[in-house]
Parts: sequence; C-alpha cells; structure tokens
Amino acid sequence: MENELKKVIGEIRSLDAAAVEEATRRQAGLAKPPGSLGRLEDISIRLAGITGKVKNTLEKKRIVVLSADNGVIEEGVSATPRSVTATQSVNMTRRLTGMSSIARHFGNEVTVVDVGIADEYECDEIVNRKIAPGTKNFYREPAMTREQALRAILVGVEQAEAAKKDGVDVLGVGEMGIGNTSTSSAVLCVLTGLSVEQVTGRGGGLTDEAFARKKEVISHAIELHKPDRDDVIDVLSKVGGLDICAMCGVFLGAARERIPVVIDGFISIVAALCAARLCPTAKEYMFPSHASFEVGYMAAARELGLEPWLLLGMRLGEGSGCPIAFEVMEAACAMMNGMASFGEEANIDDGYLDEIRAKDSFSV
Amino acid sequence: MENELKKVIGEIRSLDAAAVEEATRRQAGLAKPPGSLGRLEDISIRLAGITGKVKNTLEKKRIVVLSADNGVIEEGVSATPRSVTATQSVNMTRRLTGMSSIARHFGNEVTVVDVGIADEYECDEIVNRKIAPGTKNFYREPAMTREQALRAILVGVEQAEAAKKDGVDVLGVGEMGIGNTSTSSAVLCVLTGLSVEQVTGRGGGLTDEAFARKKEVISHAIELHKPDRDDVIDVLSKVGGLDICAMCGVFLGAARERIPVVIDGFISIVAALCAARLCPTAKEYMFPSHASFEVGYMAAARELGLEPWLLLGMRLGEGSGCPIAFEVMEAACAMMNGMASFGEEANIDDGYLDEIRAKDSFSV
Repeated sequence: MENELKKVIGEIRSLDAAAVEEATRRQAGLAKPPGSLGRLEDISIRLAGITGKVKNTLEKKRIVVLSADNGVIEEGVSATPRSVTATQSVNMTRRLTGMSSIARHFGNEVTVVDVGIADEYECDEIVNRKIAPGTKNFYREPAMTREQALRAILVGVEQAEAAKKDGVDVLGVGEMGIGNTSTSSAVLCVLTGLSVEQVTGRGGGLTDEAFARKKEVISHAIELHKPDRDDVIDVLSKVGGLDICAMCGVFLGAARERIPVVIDGFISIVAALCAARLCPTAKEYMFPSHASFEVGYMAAARELGLEPWLLLGMRLGEGSGCPIAFEVMEAACAMMNGMASFGEEANIDDGYLDEIRAKDSFSV
Repeated sequence: MENELKKVIGEIRSLDAAAVEEATRRQAGLAKPPGSLGRLEDISIRLAGITGKVKNTLEKKRIVVLSADNGVIEEGVSATPRSVTATQSVNMTRRLTGMSSIARHFGNEVTVVDVGIADEYECDEIVNRKIAPGTKNFYREPAMTREQALRAILVGVEQAEAAKKDGVDVLGVGEMGIGNTSTSSAVLCVLTGLSVEQVTGRGGGLTDEAFARKKEVISHAIELHKPDRDDVIDVLSKVGGLDICAMCGVFLGAARERIPVVIDGFISIVAALCAARLCPTAKEYMFPSHASFEVGYMAAARELGLEPWLLLGMRLGEGSGCPIAFEVMEAACAMMNGMASFGEEANIDDGYLDEIRAKDSFSV
C-alpha cells in the first residue's frame, strides 16, 4: 500500500514548459494592457501547462464528494447529529443540497463516494468504498490505522483515474462528514505548527462552551498521539478523517492524470495541503475557489501560496465553491481562445504595440 | 432636462418588503447551517426584493458599454492613444476584446453605446448617442456643460428602459474610454473628500513620471473648477466624462425599471457612486463584481458599503467583471430554487431543526 502511493507520487510530472511558454507569448500579444486580466491570465497559462494545449475548453466538469463520519463527535465538538452525513450524502445524489443544486444548474457532474459513512442508508448512486463505519474517537485512540489511511488515499486516486477515463476536463473536491472541521483543524495544526487557537473555528457557529471544548479536544489528541509532522500519513491516521485522506488522494491522482483540480473550502484545502506535502509538484494542478469563512482556511492557503478568487463568506463545504470557480476558469479560457491579438484581428496598429512594449506601461 | 432627471429619480422605489420577508423565511428553512452560503443568501434575498418573486432566474443578461473620449489625455495622463477608444468599441461588437470574448462564452448580450467617441469609425452595431466628440480638456476648461452631462445621464436611463422592454433580467455596466481612470479619480476625489493620492492609480501601469503628472493634472483641475461636491452634476460636468455620466444613468434607470445591475471595476463604481448620491435608494439594485486592482476602487466600494465578490487582480474595464458576477448570481438563484427545506424534501428530522434553532448554532 505504501509502495502503491509512492508509485502514484513518482508518476506526477511538472507542467509542460513549452506549452506554458507558448501560452505566455499568446497572452502578451492579446489586445489589452499586459496583466490587466490578472488571475484569468495566470489560469489560462497554467491550464496550458497542464493540458499541453494553449487553447482549452472545460466541458466536462465533475465534483467528487468524499463522505465519512468522525468518531470524535462523541466529545461534543459538533452541534449536528451524525445522521446528517448519510442523509445529506443521499440528498446530494438528488441535487437537493447547497452544492449539488448549484452544480445541477451549471451542468456539473457530482460523484458521491462513501469512504466511511457510519449510518445505514439506501442509495445506489453513492459509490461504496467504505473503509470503516466512521473513524475512532481520536480524543481516546488514533482515528484509524496507517493502513486505513493509505487505503482511503488510494480511493481518491482511483476517483481521479475514473475521471480521466470519463474525459473529465476539471475536477472539484468536496466532502460531507459531521465533525470534519475538528479533524481538519487538528491536521492543519500539526502540519503547520500553528496553535490550535489559530486554526480552529466555530464551524457553523458553535456556542462559546462547545467551541472551547472543540479546541480542548484537539489539543489533547495532539498531545496524546504525538503525530509526526514530517509524516503526513501518520498525522492523517492519528487525528485526520477518512474523507480528508480520500480528498488528498484525489488531489494526488488529479496531478498524476494531469487534470486541473479545484479546492473548495476549509476541509478541502487541508486535504490539498496534505497532498502538497506528500508531493510539492501536485500544487501545480491545484486551483483555489472561495475563501472559506472558517478561520483555518487562510492559514492553509498561505501555506500553499494560494490566494482565493471568491470572497463570498461561505462555510457550507460539500464542494460548494467549485461550480463558481469552474466558471471563473471558463472565463479564462474564453478570453484566451476568443480575444484578438494586437496588430492582427484587433486592428490596433503596431506603433501602439511597440510603444507600450517600450514603456512596459499601459494606462487606459 | 434637470426636471426629466428628477422625474426618473422620483420614480425609483425601494425593494418589495413582502418578497424580501418571504425570501428570508425560505432561506432560513433550507437544509444547511443558517448563513453558511454567505453572500449567495443575501443575493437571492435581494433579487426577490427587486423582482417581487422568491424564485428567480437570470436568463437574459446584458452588458451595456458606454464609450467616450476624454480631452484631458492631451496632458499626457494616458500611455494609450485616443484611437483605441473607437477601435476597441468596434472590436467589442465583434466579441474580440477581453470582456466581449468572455461575454460571448456565457451568452451575455453586449450593447455598445457611443456617447462621445472622438475618432471616426464604421460600425452599425454601435448605438449612436454621441453628445460630443469627446470632452474638453478639464486641465484647462470644464469637461462639458451641465446640459451635456444631463443629456449623457439620460442616454443611460434610456438604455435601462430599452433593457426592460427587451426582457433583460440583469444588467452589467462597462465602459471604453482612454483617459477615464483620470476622470474617475477626479470625480471620486471631489465626492469623497479623499486626497488625489488616495484615489489615483497607475491605470494599466504608468511610469513614475506620467503617474506624477496624472495626479498633478487632477489636482489642478479640481482647484481650477472648484466643483461643488454636493452637486453631482456639477462635479461630473467639470471633471467627469460622458461615459461616467451615461453609466450613472444606467444605474439610475435600472433602479427605476427594477432590474438588478452589476458594477464592474473602477470607472463603473465611480458612476455607481454618482447614482447613489443622486438617489440613495438606487443602491438597493446594485451588485458588486470584482475588486479592481486600481487603487480608487476600494475607496468607492467603502463609500457605497459594498464588498466585492471576486479577487482576480483585474484592471481591464470594459465590463469584464460582469460575466462572472452574473454566474455568481445564477449560483445564488440555483441554490434558492433547487435546495430542499428541512423537514420536507431533505428528510432531516424536525428534532434536529428544533435543536439548531434553539441553540442558534450549527457546526459541521
């Protein structure tokens, strides 16, 4: 299992430098002040590096949702009952939840994968890859075995493989799992060395008392299990969750399959950070979406060197930031594919082009 | 003319309070932690207040681009030649520019209106409402007469009327006009009382020398003409532009016609501020898009009490932030229209609902 993961990581390659160069050249020639479309320009260039083509279209878009329960909710770290993980996972397949109703509107596919839902449910549309019926309570014992963590990561890798086979152009990574802001904060705390205080939020809005308890539970677990911050699998197995593991696997798998992959909110970005720690090159395939309201999000984003595109004050999870991020990426493609170049279609004469190049300045 | 504008302003009504209340109630009942979809929730509620319907769809989306030249470029405040205003206005109708290539991808209509292009061009698709072939150089004399400013505003109002007649569901307001970051900074400076330094940027990237000159020109003009900050028309006519006037008119007209209207970047938000000063209720119909890289943007946004949704480092203008903002609004509608409510479709039992209501807290 350990070797299987190593093999995946070993197969992750960097961006296509020639395509990046060609895309950068085309960007510089488009009829606009250089840099004036900001991140849209960067996105279009990075997409070229991923696909090897200067002009890209994102037709098939899929959000993969990893669902799993977390034993630590026994400690009262969440106001929501465990049953909601199963119920909302089923509701996603019916496009009744926040993310999935938005995804339906934009024609995004949604794949829900059970890597560890505790409660029973009936729904053939959920992909069953259950590793365990939820993790153990990490306040008392490690959340899972090292082997379970590795298996969960490989479930994510498999989802990226399936996406490649299905011709998916861009992936988004979401989750459903009551208690997973606690596991995410614990993992982030260990990986960054930041304090529990700095990376732990109220989730959807815990009371003062429950919030204090959440931080106490996380601190205690880290002290008890002493996860090795240089060993991501150790951290994930001791204080992580099956959902975070599998999400980490999707990020690694997407990089190996050369599929651009969008990070959603807090849990998603912690999983992305785990993937980047396992393989820094995987970062080249990751795109942010919105800045989650949850306090740890920005800490993880800074660690990854990513700046979110959307400021919408969202904290729902599920992958709810992905559909809009896909549209931002589509805008970048439309600009790259549809704009005229100076001197050619744009009918802006070369004297002007020479002038702005000479000055390296352009003001409208 | 003054009376005609007063009539428009007098016909602007507030949001439909009953629809806002009903939409707020539906939001509270959707199966998610209250507030967890942040701005998307606010957008859906405000749209209800505008249309009077809880469930909305934004099918017909139009970006109105106001094009005009600015005499002040004689002073060397822009590195771009005047001819680009006409050329790019024509290119927009062919969907070859940044905004218009993105708009084409998303199926947005683009209407280009000439309110003051100086150079000649041939293009039947541009709506000819030319007030003058560009403004005068405000470094030496007022940019335009009061009557011209009023006429330009009414051109914008007329565009909103046309949009209503055509069944447009949402409008975006863009511009094309070399020199219009200078006019916008001048107007913003007077309206807010902020210093020229605080509201003036490098546009697309002026050299240090040209940037210093730009600020000097703006300061001098304000000192020379002494615009009355309590009289928006006075400010616009002395140091504004025909594009800003007409854009201000679109914002006022949209409010009167009860059409939601999206602000683009720096020039657009200065025009929105002018509209809000003429009629504070017009603000209820305005939606932000991206935070322009241009320094004055945030000053104007603060003044309007608006927080941008998108952080993309863009500074192209044209209306380039509108297509993505439209998609954000569509996501808000999809969520409002498609999500299940607690206790009903979502199959999440009432005990849970009562519990979270009692605690006024919810943590996933």
